[in-house]
Amino acid sequence: MSKESNKAKFLAEFPKLVGELKSILVGYGMPAEAVQWFEDSLNYNTPGGKLNRGLSVVDTYVILKGYKSVEDLPAEQYEKLAILGWCIELLQAYFLVADDMMDKSITRRGQPCWYRQKEVGEIAINDAFMLEASIYALLKSHFKKESYYIDLIELFHDVTLQTELGQLLDLITAPEDRVDLSKFSLEKHSFIVIFKTAYYSFYLPVALAMYVAGVCDPKDLEQAKSVLIPLGEYFQIQDDYLDCFGTPEQIGKIGTDIQDNKCSWVVNKALQLASPEQRKILDENYGKKDSQCEVACRKVFNDLKVDQYYIKYEENVAQELRKKISQIDESRGFKGEVLTAFLNKVYKRSK
Amino acid sequence: MSKESNKAKFLAEFPKLVGELKSILVGYGMPAEAVQWFEDSLNYNTPGGKLNRGLSVVDTYVILKGYKSVEDLPAEQYEKLAILGWCIELLQAYFLVADDMMDKSITRRGQPCWYRQKEVGEIAINDAFMLEASIYALLKSHFKKESYYIDLIELFHDVTLQTELGQLLDLITAPEDRVDLSKFSLEKHSFIVIFKTAYYSFYLPVALAMYVAGVCDPKDLEQAKSVLIPLGEYFQIQDDYLDCFGTPEQIGKIGTDIQDNKCSWVVNKALQLASPEQRKILDENYGKKDSQCEVACRKVFNDLKVDQYYIKYEENVAQELRKKISQIDESRGFKGEVLTAFLNKVYKRSK
Repeated sequence: MSKESNKAKFLAEFPKLVGELKSILVGYGMPAEAVQWFEDSLNYNTPGGKLNRGLSVVDTYVILKGYKSVEDLPAEQYEKLAILGWCIELLQAYFLVADDMMDKSITRRGQPCWYRQKEVGEIAINDAFMLEASIYALLKSHFKKESYYIDLIELFHDVTLQTELGQLLDLITAPEDRVDLSKFSLEKHSFIVIFKTAYYSFYLPVALAMYVAGVCDPKDLEQAKSVLIPLGEYFQIQDDYLDCFGTPEQIGKIGTDIQDNKCSWVVNKALQLASPEQRKILDENYGKKDSQCEVACRKVFNDLKVDQYYIKYEENVAQELRKKISQIDESRGFKGEVLTAFLNKVYKRSK
Repeated sequence: MSKESNKAKFLAEFPKLVGELKSILVGYGMPAEAVQWFEDSLNYNTPGGKLNRGLSVVDTYVILKGYKSVEDLPAEQYEKLAILGWCIELLQAYFLVADDMMDKSITRRGQPCWYRQKEVGEIAINDAFMLEASIYALLKSHFKKESYYIDLIELFHDVTLQTELGQLLDLITAPEDRVDLSKFSLEKHSFIVIFKTAYYSFYLPVALAMYVAGVCDPKDLEQAKSVLIPLGEYFQIQDDYLDCFGTPEQIGKIGTDIQDNKCSWVVNKALQLASPEQRKILDENYGKKDSQCEVACRKVFNDLKVDQYYIKYEENVAQELRKKISQIDESRGFKGEVLTAFLNKVYKRSK
């Protein structure tokens, strides 16, 4: 089964979930215009991305249980996994609707951000809340009878808080309007990317599939985490690298991290290596909405050969992760192959 | 034990919970400035109100278990109830931080709204998220071993969604900047106040205490709900009435519902009764930031004797609720006295 048809199958589950969520509101006697608003928010904010996180729940389960492909999954099992996958996508929708407001972003996934839609505005905050609440409504209706129901809920709660902690540190370390590079450091960068991205994007999908598969001994969850968290960190460092050093053709967009005062791995690495003169240039030019300032920063990054440090980092981390994966204890049913599949998606990707 | 000393005892629990929540962040290795930020948000947004909702959890349990007063509760039991009480206050903090942003409010509880604090701004959205996440962190650390742990979580999830539904209908029915009275109706008003206020302010504290007391047969929860939801509706209708007809000395503030285009019971009742001429006056004057327009609306309300309809409504609803309470089946341990205590706090209050 091709990647595209996997995605199509996964997408086909979403309208059913929208219908189910709507029926909760209708059951409460909610007036039609408010039900319609909620439906519009679900459809505008939830699908439309790459859906990698949601699809990973299904893919991980297929590997864990030794199925040849997604097609071989019994329909009932597929549905359960797809629902959990959509719960991650709802979690992401909840974060993105809010992040876009906090970052004053203009577009998301090729369309105007939800809060910039006519009539929406600040109501988007409550819409974000409802996207999150939808997760728990779906878990309740589909998993209440499972022994691992409470584990799913606690996992979503924990990962939600972790993501919010990463977001908080990011927001107070790199506000768009007040540049202060003395707040930056590689340690903070590591905390931000692990908490803001790695937990929900890498650990969460695998842990969810593990619970459904019954391969969820705390030792196995820990094994998964010990690879997926550094892998998620690597993924985000790569993202930061590509934003600065990737070509627009490669990455499909024009990088804006320098002008946006982003707490990127690139600037943090440069700050670690910079001479006082180079530091001064960065202090004076980073985070300014000015292409000449951007050029000055890029010159410092190039002079310091930050791109070569990245290449070395990538080789080292990939090697370490492969070694860790080779040492995974598979005696309780966990499989290193789950982790290899993730690593292969990240290693040397260009977009 | 006096009401004031009950409140002092309850307030004394809060710093412990702040310490516990902080220690989760510290355990994750979060940098000190972010831990401080979270602590500031907790302290700024959570205490400072009347704490009626939180205190009601304790009071309800005392009645259910037949204690003479709060002082007689064993310390361990008190702590559990107080934590649940603070979880409601955290839920309320989560809503209020967001509501103030959506309503562009200026002050809350006599201080500037959190989002208007220097350096906070839109970060308040993420702070609201973290206030909510704190609820589930506290439930996990204090109730995980209780048989009713999952009931507490589901109750908070359900009530959170219900409150958000009420908020959504309110926001799209009565946007502050676009007056359209054709959107208003007494039916919508009823949905808004029941969902936005009654569930979390009236049903939630009682249901939480019932779970801890082990008096939580679905029939008993339903008995509680059947009184507390209409009582919460009555409370909010009374609030709307006082905003318009109470004197500033009585209510401790100057009512602004008319100028703020609020979907208040008063205007909805007036719309139900108005002649075409009176309707025209309301259409042209309601929701305008202009004291002459406010006076014109008030004249219509007075001509229609909306205040007398309120008096009649209050007598009827109080009588009905007393009747319902007198018919409560106490055979499984639930007590009508729990509901009488709530009704007595609401009936003919003037602030």
